[in-house]
Amino acid sequence: VEPPRDAPARKSDTLALLRAPAADVWVATADADAPHLVPLSLGWLDDRVVIAVDAASLTARNLAAHRTARLATGPTRDVVMLDAVLEATHPVEAAPPAIQDGYAAQADWDPRTAAGYVYLVLRPTRIQAWRGANEIPGRTLMRDGAWLV
Amino acid sequence: VEPPRDAPARKSDTLALLRAPAADVWVATADADAPHLVPLSLGWLDDRVVIAVDAASLTARNLAAHRTARLATGPTRDVVMLDAVLEATHPVEAAPPAIQDGYAAQADWDPRTAAGYVYLVLRPTRIQAWRGANEIPGRTLMRDGAWLV
Repeated sequence: VEPPRDAPARKSDTLALLRAPAADVWVATADADAPHLVPLSLGWLDDRVVIAVDAASLTARNLAAHRTARLATGPTRDVVMLDAVLEATHPVEAAPPAIQDGYAAQADWDPRTAAGYVYLVLRPTRIQAWRGANEIPGRTLMRDGAWLV
Repeated sequence: VEPPRDAPARKSDTLALLRAPAADVWVATADADAPHLVPLSLGWLDDRVVIAVDAASLTARNLAAHRTARLATGPTRDVVMLDAVLEATHPVEAAPPAIQDGYAAQADWDPRTAAGYVYLVLRPTRIQAWRGANEIPGRTLMRDGAWLV
């Protein structure tokens, strides 16, 4: 078993996972006690998670109604968990160029011409990262939207 | 891009992921529009997902209250997605031996002596599996609790 990482190492590793080319993110949303969960391509732009989905998808509708998501990236034994709130919704063709270009630069697809798609910009309120049970202490890297390290 | 797998191959690959030693499962639950998501060690026993959690955990409490979970295993580009309902809850020390032994045989830990833990037995109602966009057609392998293949 590896020794637990210190806080700066965890933050650095976490940012590397969030910025990784062609990374995916598990996105959990809910409506009326019913959970939803899908894997999506991850954009990490300016301390925000950006995802691109069909505006008619359950993920988009749940977020429009209730604003909150819980997200995970990394493999299950090197996880980054994020609680996040919906900050903005942009139809893909009318989104700010920084989002269009930034998302396409990280993801391995470009939703700009996908009919009916929207970018959802999610602001993390809490970020936690751990590899094994010995990293449960100290797992919280961001709280109330502020990095602790 | 690989050609899409046929239904028997997908079922066989899906069972291999569900039975894999030391496999993990993403477990999404909800309460009152708030999503929860955690990675847990997976047991696949007799066409049921078995997980072991602290009875006081949010996952256990959400499932006790609302009975439904959405689960994922496999990497994001070789996913198995399961919608499931809570079928039984067993305190670890009083669970049927088939569950105690079966879980310990697949997982890389044994919760039998973990104070306050319970096994949750989840019955899949729908199972879907896909690797890429070309496998979205035909992704449903189980519907209403019955294998289609």
